[in-house]
Amino acid sequence: MNKSPKKVETSLEYLRKLFIMPDSPDKFIEFGNDLLEMLHDFFQEKGGIHSSITLPELSEIFNQTAVPDSPDLIKDVLSEIKTKVIRHSVKVGNPYYIGHMTSAIPYFMILLEMIIAALNQNQVKIETAKASSFVERELVAWLHRLVFNRTDRFYEKNIQNPRIALGNVTTDGTLANMTALLVAREKAFPPDGKFPGLRMVGVDRALRHYGYDRGVIIVSERGHYSIKKAANLLGIGEDNVLNINVDDNNRIDIKKLRRKVNSLGQGKGGNRTKIIAIVGIAGTTETGSVDNLQELGETAREVGAHFHVDACWGGSALLVDGYRPLFRGIEEADSVTIDAHKLLYCPMTMGIVLFRNEKDLQFIRHSTQYVIRRNSVDTGRFTFEGSRPFACLKPWAALKVIGREGYGLLFRQANKTTDNLKKLLDSCDNFETLTISELFILTYRFIPGTVREQLLAWKGVESSSRDMEGAKESRQKIKKVNHLINGLNIKLHKALRRDDTTFVSRTTLESTRYRPQNIVVLRAVLINPLTDKQILKEIVDTQNRIGLKIWHEFEAAYRRMVT
Amino acid sequence: MNKSPKKVETSLEYLRKLFIMPDSPDKFIEFGNDLLEMLHDFFQEKGGIHSSITLPELSEIFNQTAVPDSPDLIKDVLSEIKTKVIRHSVKVGNPYYIGHMTSAIPYFMILLEMIIAALNQNQVKIETAKASSFVERELVAWLHRLVFNRTDRFYEKNIQNPRIALGNVTTDGTLANMTALLVAREKAFPPDGKFPGLRMVGVDRALRHYGYDRGVIIVSERGHYSIKKAANLLGIGEDNVLNINVDDNNRIDIKKLRRKVNSLGQGKGGNRTKIIAIVGIAGTTETGSVDNLQELGETAREVGAHFHVDACWGGSALLVDGYRPLFRGIEEADSVTIDAHKLLYCPMTMGIVLFRNEKDLQFIRHSTQYVIRRNSVDTGRFTFEGSRPFACLKPWAALKVIGREGYGLLFRQANKTTDNLKKLLDSCDNFETLTISELFILTYRFIPGTVREQLLAWKGVESSSRDMEGAKESRQKIKKVNHLINGLNIKLHKALRRDDTTFVSRTTLESTRYRPQNIVVLRAVLINPLTDKQILKEIVDTQNRIGLKIWHEFEAAYRRMVT
Repeated sequence: MNKSPKKVETSLEYLRKLFIMPDSPDKFIEFGNDLLEMLHDFFQEKGGIHSSITLPELSEIFNQTAVPDSPDLIKDVLSEIKTKVIRHSVKVGNPYYIGHMTSAIPYFMILLEMIIAALNQNQVKIETAKASSFVERELVAWLHRLVFNRTDRFYEKNIQNPRIALGNVTTDGTLANMTALLVAREKAFPPDGKFPGLRMVGVDRALRHYGYDRGVIIVSERGHYSIKKAANLLGIGEDNVLNINVDDNNRIDIKKLRRKVNSLGQGKGGNRTKIIAIVGIAGTTETGSVDNLQELGETAREVGAHFHVDACWGGSALLVDGYRPLFRGIEEADSVTIDAHKLLYCPMTMGIVLFRNEKDLQFIRHSTQYVIRRNSVDTGRFTFEGSRPFACLKPWAALKVIGREGYGLLFRQANKTTDNLKKLLDSCDNFETLTISELFILTYRFIPGTVREQLLAWKGVESSSRDMEGAKESRQKIKKVNHLINGLNIKLHKALRRDDTTFVSRTTLESTRYRPQNIVVLRAVLINPLTDKQILKEIVDTQNRIGLKIWHEFEAAYRRMVT
Repeated sequence: MNKSPKKVETSLEYLRKLFIMPDSPDKFIEFGNDLLEMLHDFFQEKGGIHSSITLPELSEIFNQTAVPDSPDLIKDVLSEIKTKVIRHSVKVGNPYYIGHMTSAIPYFMILLEMIIAALNQNQVKIETAKASSFVERELVAWLHRLVFNRTDRFYEKNIQNPRIALGNVTTDGTLANMTALLVAREKAFPPDGKFPGLRMVGVDRALRHYGYDRGVIIVSERGHYSIKKAANLLGIGEDNVLNINVDDNNRIDIKKLRRKVNSLGQGKGGNRTKIIAIVGIAGTTETGSVDNLQELGETAREVGAHFHVDACWGGSALLVDGYRPLFRGIEEADSVTIDAHKLLYCPMTMGIVLFRNEKDLQFIRHSTQYVIRRNSVDTGRFTFEGSRPFACLKPWAALKVIGREGYGLLFRQANKTTDNLKKLLDSCDNFETLTISELFILTYRFIPGTVREQLLAWKGVESSSRDMEGAKESRQKIKKVNHLINGLNIKLHKALRRDDTTFVSRTTLESTRYRPQNIVVLRAVLINPLTDKQILKEIVDTQNRIGLKIWHEFEAAYRRMVT
């Protein structure tokens, strides 16, 4: 700011006026216009994606340790937000930003947020959310049908049936997964004669009553970290999340799953483990892969476990018939979670959890005298969260504005963009793509062509050689070089962050062709419809150019490994 | 809608344009203007608070059971939202709506929501939230200081220290309370030698390792239902929430608390109960009362329990020095929760949980390869939630625009409004106020003056009479009449809902002068600065008028009881 903000004469009259939509909307429009210009500048601004300011510099800007005493003018605070906040925000909507699931959103979302804030409904209770409760139930029914496709009759009967809930709108995917696993836990240890259920007496007494030593949740190594968090929260313990290896396509290894399940010896004496839930993933966070849901479902049914599908990333692809085969078996899941702020292109944040059985949410139903009376029609009876915003308006309206057809175009475009990036990387000699992407996520790494070929040659020796010693030697060489290339890619990723004209993320995978060695990979998420071929080319060129520069620092060490 | 919406020619070009802020902002401004008019109409509209449409009628409006196939024009969807949603929303900002904690919000909040949506930062991680992570830490430090008031040095050192977190911004108060109790649970059963802590192995093994039969959470009968929900979620069990009676001011009865704590015989052989947390309430949902936090804190320290204060409702009152004595002892709490969408007048929803000890959140710290690496500065390492919106901008900016001074004026006004309502009710012969309000909540009931006097007379007989039989008879008569008046007030509340020109909520209290009998009460929450004396008078007049009308149906039954 150029001048120090003008202090406001605080009076109740002034404050009261803040609480009314200005009588002539001029003032609001004026602010709105200023704001739009700010936001416009932010989006148009060339410069870096993350702004060049350093974290220590930001620490200096936001270092007021006490609440301000006197009020500032709205326009001064907006201008402060412009210079301090907007300028140093991450341009997640920039088409060169292809590193996370946070992407561009349609601008009409901003209009919807205005409506949501102005109405300020609280979804917990019909007394604070009238039409909006019905919007929520309609949206939930739409997505329920998309996933489970039960009969017309089922939806006609239940879409606005206040006695049940087909699912919950939650704050994000973590809460959605947690709600699904909470229901799974209650179902695994339900009331039984005089035993009032786990819900009332806790994990320890429930295990004792049912004669188990422990309860476990099974998911692949690609399982989202929210599953572990949920296991901790639910009092099951993170160690009781059993991670099953994945195959080369990052899908859960069904054979290993079955072996693990059998080894737990469900119900047989001596080994008393209750499988609370088997979790399938429909779009892993790291690689976009979809588990074999059909086989997972069968296994879950055989052992009497709740079958949950974490489709937070991929679930929305069901809007497009072409993607349905990828999800085969999802319709037999007990619960499914989908995030609206991912492939439905809604702003941060909204998750949804759906239950095939409309009675499942009764397991966590609750009521109080003052907010959600037992015989009420309040949606809050079935949610873990209490006060909730009218967030469901965003996907509800987006599904109308964009429609299944529109989402179809967007997803086909995302698929094409992913293919295009793969082609560009493959046609440049210095990259290795590492995962087949089913849902718009590609992992790869920078590796000079000669090094890649050398690894391939050693791999050939390793697998074909009858000479045990030779095989072992090749294996060790591969390991050493991969270790070096890992370091190179970490350095490259940091250099790309400094360059800041493009953005991909970085992770580590054990499931590549070099398994079980951990490979550092770059990760691109390709859902921004504004990311065109030319932009992809610039991104690859930048990575190649910077990668080669860094490679010079590593080359000598590599030479020593080869000779 | 008058005409059926025009179908859109779906094309990628059309969709791409949705993703860019329109190049000339005219289009956006046009929509924005239309929207403002809609919202204006909504706020200005006389008519009812809840709209007269019935729930079955709403069911008919929102009964499409499948996702729409083809896209609609944005303007058609906005117009649909106007006729179907906005028109039938609850006017929670209306000054005649004094029934819930959901109130009017300053209009600049709508501008802030526009900024938040346009930036679409994801607070989980610095790569998706740069300046916004610092805003969040600054806000957390402000509120931490407000509550715990540690040294300048402490805040200078920690305000932007990424290795710790002074608290979390959460989606609402339930999640905030849950986070506090999660930390309390981990602290109660921490790692110990080879034992890796409850977090890793679950509740059952943790109890066994430490030699306890159960863990409990203690809170008064006024405890928010989120405490029970948390106990369920955390695997402790709802039955292990021990509710202590309250005194006549709806504050936890300290003597009974101590008696209960002693009866649990902490640590002594035979009776092995671990008190995980003692929860104090700073602003009960039903009555706005504040527990004696000092005594609660002492008790918690004596027994080595985590001391949590649920200040979701009242905490913001600490902004005003005059309210500080009411909260004496809060600075010694281990954790405190505050809701931004309550007394900070922010839109739905945002909670905050603060920990006095900056290291407490390490108990739930986590990391993953792909999103929040161990050595990162991501705020997501310390939160239960995953993806989170930039919600903290709202209270951060509000504290600048309104300032402590402004909140002081608002709270003093709220206090005056509460007093004014009490005076109006007391001066009308047909009401009985039932709780002293500390924080802007008043409970009362409709009861004709003659009936109230009769109850008083019987109460006199009951307490003074040496004649056991006479006392018993009076007691029974009081009970019968109260039962009748309960029915009257339920009927009145329903009639007020039908009248729909004013709104108060309804609950049941066991803690009135008629304890232990449950008394149905009307509940007013008086925080809307636009609710003036004239409006209060209209509300009381309406309730009196309708109450008297209903009384005629009850009068005969009452006569039979008296004679």
